[in-house]
Amino acid sequence: MKLKKPYLLFLGDAGDQLAAKTAQGIRDWRPDNCVGQLRLEGCNADIGLKDMTIDEAREAGARTLVAGVANRGGLISKAWAAKLHEALEGGLDLAAGLHNRLIDVPELREAAENFGRNIFDVRHPAETFPVGSGEKRAGKRLLPVGTDCSCGKMYTALAIEREMLKQGRKATFRATGQTGILITGEGVSVDAVVADFISGAIEVIAPANEPDHWDIVEGQGSLFHASYAGVSTGLLHGAQADALVLCHEPTRTHMRGLPHYPLPELEDCMEANLKVASLTNPKVRFVGASFDTSRLEEDEALAFLEEMHKRLGLPAVDPVRTGVAAIVNDLA
Amino acid sequence: MKLKKPYLLFLGDAGDQLAAKTAQGIRDWRPDNCVGQLRLEGCNADIGLKDMTIDEAREAGARTLVAGVANRGGLISKAWAAKLHEALEGGLDLAAGLHNRLIDVPELREAAENFGRNIFDVRHPAETFPVGSGEKRAGKRLLPVGTDCSCGKMYTALAIEREMLKQGRKATFRATGQTGILITGEGVSVDAVVADFISGAIEVIAPANEPDHWDIVEGQGSLFHASYAGVSTGLLHGAQADALVLCHEPTRTHMRGLPHYPLPELEDCMEANLKVASLTNPKVRFVGASFDTSRLEEDEALAFLEEMHKRLGLPAVDPVRTGVAAIVNDLA
Repeated sequence: MKLKKPYLLFLGDAGDQLAAKTAQGIRDWRPDNCVGQLRLEGCNADIGLKDMTIDEAREAGARTLVAGVANRGGLISKAWAAKLHEALEGGLDLAAGLHNRLIDVPELREAAENFGRNIFDVRHPAETFPVGSGEKRAGKRLLPVGTDCSCGKMYTALAIEREMLKQGRKATFRATGQTGILITGEGVSVDAVVADFISGAIEVIAPANEPDHWDIVEGQGSLFHASYAGVSTGLLHGAQADALVLCHEPTRTHMRGLPHYPLPELEDCMEANLKVASLTNPKVRFVGASFDTSRLEEDEALAFLEEMHKRLGLPAVDPVRTGVAAIVNDLA
Repeated sequence: MKLKKPYLLFLGDAGDQLAAKTAQGIRDWRPDNCVGQLRLEGCNADIGLKDMTIDEAREAGARTLVAGVANRGGLISKAWAAKLHEALEGGLDLAAGLHNRLIDVPELREAAENFGRNIFDVRHPAETFPVGSGEKRAGKRLLPVGTDCSCGKMYTALAIEREMLKQGRKATFRATGQTGILITGEGVSVDAVVADFISGAIEVIAPANEPDHWDIVEGQGSLFHASYAGVSTGLLHGAQADALVLCHEPTRTHMRGLPHYPLPELEDCMEANLKVASLTNPKVRFVGASFDTSRLEEDEALAFLEEMHKRLGLPAVDPVRTGVAAIVNDLA
């Protein structure tokens, strides 16, 4: 799955800024991939790009309209469908990470066929993958792992890629979820592949590489999440991670979506991940810890990071507040 | 997915007895589900049932023709297709656990529609499943777990179910693979569900039950198999196993399909499974060990089981050689 760049970012009729957070992520992490934004009437989001019509975007070089926005009630509204149809007609591919597929909207499917355009529903893998081989491959790989879902693994991975590139090192972010795929234009939504092929899919998207090249593989779920640990396990095995980064949101009181499950202790989480990861890479180690301290005050947050640094014996960062240089600097 | 019983077992043109091992398994474990066998010219297998035509089977009450046989080269031959077509026309549903689907053969799909029959490709889940909730449910569950794939987990589970029923206890085998599904007529091929729903699928097929009822859940893969550990992890979490049985084939020299991976030590395998299983059931424990000693001589095998009994401090059985009563007797 590989999207054509650059993009026109479609914000639809997003009720607020949060509804457009995927578009915001694309703009933040890959500004060069974006030529403008397209907003429908009633849109309350603005990601700071130039507002463009489809024709203007096409002229500015856009190849794909990316719906980087949650659709209200999970439905493709008439206003959406009309605009997306116009994009296909105007020469753009479509890409979205919605639960329901754009390709399942008959008028869009027909328009794509008629105008020779592609529709990428990135949450739904279009390829098939081999069974994982577990064979050692060249190059290095870093994987953020979490105490829970949604605790900053993608953000941490993208920040580490950016810091590595800034330091002149070779690094590539490998997307394993829909937002990551829309940001980079490729990857696999690993929680949507058939269970037998979890590790195999990761082996494909993070293949052998130069010895000093780092793949920064996007993490998913948590070994301690009763719903999704199978995905996290296959991801650890497929990544053959050399380096793990622990991710944690310190104010969370229970596992996301599972009010009856407490968060694991950080040390237990690290031990379990090392154990699983060591099957395919016995040399795996933790190289840092990354915390989402956005719910703490500045002085509280910095004291917390210092405490974690001492407790874990690892660089402890918040990618937003402190950056991730402390992790990357130490990485051999 | 629920097949209509009883079955006519289709052996096709099986080259040898091994090619018909699924049919043999159905006959061994659910003889009451079988009215007869149907063999094509050139079939070298015989599972000891009465040879029947489709009409004879229909008259004897058969509702489904089950293709309990490997198809040569993965293709549905003309001779197969003609006979399967005849079965649909004669009033039977079709069921198979092949990699390629019977429903994808146009003449069979059309015939099923025309004659109002169903085709069950049990390797390919037809339903969707919820995300696992991890919520504690009533009833007890036993799960065989392996050092490797294909080391006797299904056989052990079926033998434990049979022994429990013989002792007048409440027990139900829950199939998680294609052979198990064909044997019992229901279940889910868990390695074929979408990765996000592994544990959720198991929660559905092994639901809340009476407090003294045991679900004997079929195990899959191994936490130590680099290709499939994600499936095994989700299965452990979804099963919320109260009791685990370690399964192992003592002459195996490396993980199946992975010549570069050694087998784990039994104690390491037990520790890892307890760790993963304890997330959704902190009271989980091992209640026995089951060995496939078919490649050992009788005296060697019995000495080995005695040694394992002492080493692990658990009942150590070979379901074929000794039966599994030693495990079931001790089970509270």
